[in-house]
Amino acid sequence: MVPFTVTVLGNGSAVPTSFQKPSSQLITYGSKRFMVDCGEGTQMQMITYKTGHRHIDHIFISHLHGDHFFGLIGFLNTLHLYGRKQPLHIYAVKELEKVIELQLEVSNSKLSYPLLFHFLGAGFRETLYEDKNIEVFHFPLNHRITTYGFIFREKQGERKLNKSFVERFHPSIEQMHAVKSGHDFITKAGETIANKEITIDPAPPRSYAYCSDTAYFEEAIPFIKNVNLLYHEATFDNSQQLLAKEKFHSTASQAAMIAVKANAGKLLLGHYSARFKERKHLLEEAREIFPDTNLSVEGESYEV
Amino acid sequence: MVPFTVTVLGNGSAVPTSFQKPSSQLITYGSKRFMVDCGEGTQMQMITYKTGHRHIDHIFISHLHGDHFFGLIGFLNTLHLYGRKQPLHIYAVKELEKVIELQLEVSNSKLSYPLLFHFLGAGFRETLYEDKNIEVFHFPLNHRITTYGFIFREKQGERKLNKSFVERFHPSIEQMHAVKSGHDFITKAGETIANKEITIDPAPPRSYAYCSDTAYFEEAIPFIKNVNLLYHEATFDNSQQLLAKEKFHSTASQAAMIAVKANAGKLLLGHYSARFKERKHLLEEAREIFPDTNLSVEGESYEV
Repeated sequence: MVPFTVTVLGNGSAVPTSFQKPSSQLITYGSKRFMVDCGEGTQMQMITYKTGHRHIDHIFISHLHGDHFFGLIGFLNTLHLYGRKQPLHIYAVKELEKVIELQLEVSNSKLSYPLLFHFLGAGFRETLYEDKNIEVFHFPLNHRITTYGFIFREKQGERKLNKSFVERFHPSIEQMHAVKSGHDFITKAGETIANKEITIDPAPPRSYAYCSDTAYFEEAIPFIKNVNLLYHEATFDNSQQLLAKEKFHSTASQAAMIAVKANAGKLLLGHYSARFKERKHLLEEAREIFPDTNLSVEGESYEV
Repeated sequence: MVPFTVTVLGNGSAVPTSFQKPSSQLITYGSKRFMVDCGEGTQMQMITYKTGHRHIDHIFISHLHGDHFFGLIGFLNTLHLYGRKQPLHIYAVKELEKVIELQLEVSNSKLSYPLLFHFLGAGFRETLYEDKNIEVFHFPLNHRITTYGFIFREKQGERKLNKSFVERFHPSIEQMHAVKSGHDFITKAGETIANKEITIDPAPPRSYAYCSDTAYFEEAIPFIKNVNLLYHEATFDNSQQLLAKEKFHSTASQAAMIAVKANAGKLLLGHYSARFKERKHLLEEAREIFPDTNLSVEGESYEV
C-alpha cells in the first residue's frame, strides 16, 4: 500500500510558545508531498524535523490569519535562494497573491521558479489537484474570516488480479488491464469468466481531512463523510464553550462530535490554545465522545 | 554606569539553518530596549532566549530583504494578541508600511495598539529617536536595495560632583545641578571656585553601530567614527571577495578594515553565510587586521 501520512510541523494556535509552533503540515502520498498551512517558522520546523523541502509542489492555505501563513513568504524565498526551478502551486483566497507579490516587489526579488496561484472559491466539487492516485478538494469552514478545509482522497484503485487466473490463462497485458478495470475475461475457447471470479477488491481508498480553523460546523460533514483520518482544531476545552463560540474556534468535545457525525476512522486534535501546555484533558474529553482520538504532536507523522 | 548591551537574536544570512537564524538584535540601554531587524522566527528566538517583549517601543529595520523583516508581522501580531496598548514605532523605508498594512487588512485585524511608521530617507544628521540619555541615527550602507545602518549613541553625561565639595559647601540641589552642568560655584563668602576643581569628567559617551547588510563601504565611516562597538556583517571570507562584491556583502577582512578606519573600540562579526557552520577562519582573518574582533553568537549579549 502506498504510504499516506500526515506530518505535523506546528499545532499551536495564535501565538508561538516554547512548546508549540503555528500551523503547518506535510501530507505525504508515495513520493509526493503537499503542504497545508505555513505559519511563521515552518521552514525552521522542517529543519528541526529534517523533512527537507523536495517534492513539495503544492501548498494549500486554509485562511489568512497570520498563524497559518506568515511563514509562507520565507519558505518561498528560501526555495528561491536554493535555486528551485520547478513550478510551485499555491491554493488560497486571492488576497494572498497580493501579499506575496508585494513582499517580493519591495525586496526587488524575482523568484527562480514559477509561482502559480489557484484561488479558492465556492467550487467545492471540483478538484484542486489531481493525479492518477489522489485528488484534493476544499470545503467551507466557519471562522471569523473566509476559511477552507482540505480533503486528500485516494482514487479508487484498480481491481487486483487473482494469481491463479494469471497462471492458468496467461492473459496479455491488454487483457490484464481490461480485467483490472472490471471487464469479464473471454478464454481462447470462447468461455466468459465473470470478473469477480478472477479479481479481488482493491484496498478501499483512503482519505484525510484538515479542519482548522473553525467553530463547530456541521455543514462541513457532507464533505468529510467517512474520512479515514480527521485533523480537527481543538483550540479550547469544554469549560470554554462560550469563548470557542465567540472566537469561532472549537472545543475538543466539538471536534469529537464532528468525528462521530462524519463517521471518521480516527481523529487527530490540534491548534491548541497557548494556555494548554498539558493537553491530557482535551484528549479525555474528546475520547469520551470519539474513542479513537489522539493528540497531534509536532514532528510526528500519522498514517491515514 | 547604565547597562548598554547588544543581544544577538539571529546572525545568519539569507536562509535559516539548524545553527543560525535570520538577523535580529535587541539593544538594551537601562530599562529601554530597541529592536534592530526582525527576520522570520525572531519571536521564537525571543522565547528561546527568554528575552520577553516588554519595553520594546522602537524597531529599526535596515532594509527589505526577507531575512531582515519577515518576522516583523508575526511579532506585531503577537504583541496585538497579548493586548499591547502603548504605541510602537517602526523606522524603515516607506514600502514596509504597505506590506504590514496589507497583511493586517487581509486578516481583518486591527492592532490593539498604535503602530507609528517613521520613514528613513537622507536626513542622516537628524535623530530618529532621542531621550535624555541616548539618541539613534541612521546612515547609508551599500547593498543591492536601499539599506541603512543605525548608530545608538549615549548623550554626553553631566559632570560628576567631587565628594569633598559636597561635604564642605553643602550646596543646594539647584547649585548642584548648576555645577554638574559646568558652572563655577560661588561660596557664601562670595568666593568663586572653578568648576574643574569641584567636578570630575563624566564617563565618555558610549556608542554602538549596526552595519548589515553592506558591501565594503568607506562612505559609512564618518557616521560610525570612534564607535565603541561595531557590528559589521561578514557574510563571506577572504577567498570570496568577488562573490562578496557581486552580492554587495562584505568579507570578514573588509569588516575589520572598516573597524580600523572607523577607529572602533571592538568589532563583532555576524550575518554569516549558511556555508560556515564553523567560523573560526572568519575570526582569524578579521583579527589579523583588527585584533579586538569577536564572532557574535546567537543568544549572547555584548557590552557596548
